Amino acid sequence: MPADTLNAFVPGPRCEIAGSPDGRLAGLTFAVKDLIDVAAWPTGGGNPDWARVNPIPGRNAWIVDTLLGAGASIIGKTITDEVSLGILGENPFDGTALNPAAPDRVPGGSSSGSASVVAGGICDFALGTDTGGSVRVPASFCGLYGIRPTHGRVNFSGITAQAPSSDTVGWLARDANVFARVGEIVFGAPTPSALPVRLLVATDAFGFADAAVADALAPLVGRLAAVIGDRRDETLAPQGLSIWQAAQRTLQSSEAWLTFRDWLDRYNPRLQYSVARNLTLGSQITDAERNRAALMREEARARMRLLLAPGTILCLPTTPFPAPLLGRSVSELAFPRERITCLACLGGLTGIPHVVVPGGSVDGAPVGLSIVGAPGSDLDLLAVARKMAS
Amino acid sequence: MPADTLNAFVPGPRCEIAGSPDGRLAGLTFAVKDLIDVAAWPTGGGNPDWARVNPIPGRNAWIVDTLLGAGASIIGKTITDEVSLGILGENPFDGTALNPAAPDRVPGGSSSGSASVVAGGICDFALGTDTGGSVRVPASFCGLYGIRPTHGRVNFSGITAQAPSSDTVGWLARDANVFARVGEIVFGAPTPSALPVRLLVATDAFGFADAAVADALAPLVGRLAAVIGDRRDETLAPQGLSIWQAAQRTLQSSEAWLTFRDWLDRYNPRLQYSVARNLTLGSQITDAERNRAALMREEARARMRLLLAPGTILCLPTTPFPAPLLGRSVSELAFPRERITCLACLGGLTGIPHVVVPGGSVDGAPVGLSIVGAPGSDLDLLAVARKMAS
Repeated sequence: MPADTLNAFVPGPRCEIAGSPDGRLAGLTFAVKDLIDVAAWPTGGGNPDWARVNPIPGRNAWIVDTLLGAGASIIGKTITDEVSLGILGENPFDGTALNPAAPDRVPGGSSSGSASVVAGGICDFALGTDTGGSVRVPASFCGLYGIRPTHGRVNFSGITAQAPSSDTVGWLARDANVFARVGEIVFGAPTPSALPVRLLVATDAFGFADAAVADALAPLVGRLAAVIGDRRDETLAPQGLSIWQAAQRTLQSSEAWLTFRDWLDRYNPRLQYSVARNLTLGSQITDAERNRAALMREEARARMRLLLAPGTILCLPTTPFPAPLLGRSVSELAFPRERITCLACLGGLTGIPHVVVPGGSVDGAPVGLSIVGAPGSDLDLLAVARKMAS
Repeated sequence: MPADTLNAFVPGPRCEIAGSPDGRLAGLTFAVKDLIDVAAWPTGGGNPDWARVNPIPGRNAWIVDTLLGAGASIIGKTITDEVSLGILGENPFDGTALNPAAPDRVPGGSSSGSASVVAGGICDFALGTDTGGSVRVPASFCGLYGIRPTHGRVNFSGITAQAPSSDTVGWLARDANVFARVGEIVFGAPTPSALPVRLLVATDAFGFADAAVADALAPLVGRLAAVIGDRRDETLAPQGLSIWQAAQRTLQSSEAWLTFRDWLDRYNPRLQYSVARNLTLGSQITDAERNRAALMREEARARMRLLLAPGTILCLPTTPFPAPLLGRSVSELAFPRERITCLACLGGLTGIPHVVVPGGSVDGAPVGLSIVGAPGSDLDLLAVARKMAS
């Protein structure tokens, strides 16, 4: 697909940097979400007043440096929702990247341009960030592999923060082998040959998704179960996914306010109305609300430790439906946004790694399956994704 | 002053329309705030997503039609704070118009460009709107005459509403004769030769302003007293100016939310952070709060009826200080904004006419004196201003 039909790269000159010629990723190309520093290129953050007041970085983000050193070449920087504060990918400043898998629908966000260029076949993989779903949601909506690594495992230096207790950097790919090869470089270890031995299927999460999504994902779950062997149904969140979602929204929104308040105050930037509104609502969260949400986070983490013993993985739908149609109003999207984050909140709330496996389809639009494991099991999840594709 | 140094006209082709050749305002030129319709020209409203979704008007606003018919010629449309939601005139989309009287300070808003072109000598007068101070504040900051007419007296058709129970359309001028001549056309009556006979000086309002402002306005008050004859000190707001300001803020903010909510919802527009934040706060005002503010409005109106018997006018400082310096942060400006509206709230809250008379100066920057009278006394106030200048 021609790059210019995707509208996925940031406006202006294209950032192109050749990787080290003899690395293990030599020959692969990748794109970089415009929240991640590339030396001598502006980090635009999807907002003209972010780019305007932040200096052009003098060095690469750790992950960019690592991938260039491993031989992969950058082909461009990609559009993001404003300073990562969005889940759908409709950006009024840089434009909305095309969802090549469903052109009348949103690409998902905030790593929208990264999903677009990979799904459009422009490069082999692309970097994104994921605080509340920003890699996983576009992966699901564009039909791609995507990883949100274990929180704190991948060096985050040189990347625009949103909510530090939930922020991660990950990547998207079309091909399970490429997807795993990048992981070997980022995590600095080989993909294990031994696979997990127990699969939990999160019945509450499948029940929360549209019935058509659960049906569409059933063959993927079947293939996953065949790869793993032992399959058992389990409730993911006894307190309710909506309770976990509320806790994550409280923590993430109040942290985002703390991250951006000085910028908002000093520069009074231009923002999409919904982004400014959500930041304002974040400013109103009280310490008591934050403390209560933090208690719920501890409960959710305890639940994950209980479920995800060594060798155990769990699967759930990545999104409760495929991508919404383009151009819906703020109020039409309010409830869908909340539903999406009911399934996505597990990542930011507990910090466990998530891998999205593509393959589901509803009304011709993609939906993905999320596979999660205990903290640190990132490479095991990549191995499972690769095995499922083989 | 060259027009292009003012940065006061909206970007794009200049709107220039000749007035009727034989009208009583023939030979005068004026500018039109970009919230007021001129047929076949976009009404930009100071925001790219307002212009984008509002059709180009097919007819002139009543006041534009009336002035063109009276012989005045339009020389351009002028920058406004976004959809009138600002009092300082710093617009990140269209740019900030120069304050010719104090180039390192804001011009005041929301009728910022209109004040700039008149103070810069580009035209004879300019139209503005005033809901919470949007003619009066730039008149004070740029050293101009300005009028906020009696609420409901001037036909508001073809003008972008903000808070209908407070919205008015007025004008700014350098010359007291021009200022009054425009009034004769707009109000359709001659300027009376008989002047008011009693002057009240609002001691609480003068006390609320910076001491330097009260000192700077003393000669103007003296001249006004000399013109009127009978002078008496009086408390304007026994409940407190801050109480009236809170009531006006509640009413205006909740009405503004109702005015713009559908636009915000449907188009999720780009907005300056502080504008989006204030709209969000407006959405949170409860019916109980609105009802309480409406009671206070009735009390304020009763107070005005008590004070402003026929033949009585009252004066107060238009602003408590001259224009703030350019480029201050949101938090640095928060308290100054509140202080400005403590003096400006009287207009939107009670609907009585206000005329700003220039002539004060603090640290080389202008401050104006507001003269108010009973509803319908607009031409009497214009006559007073003209007499003071003679």
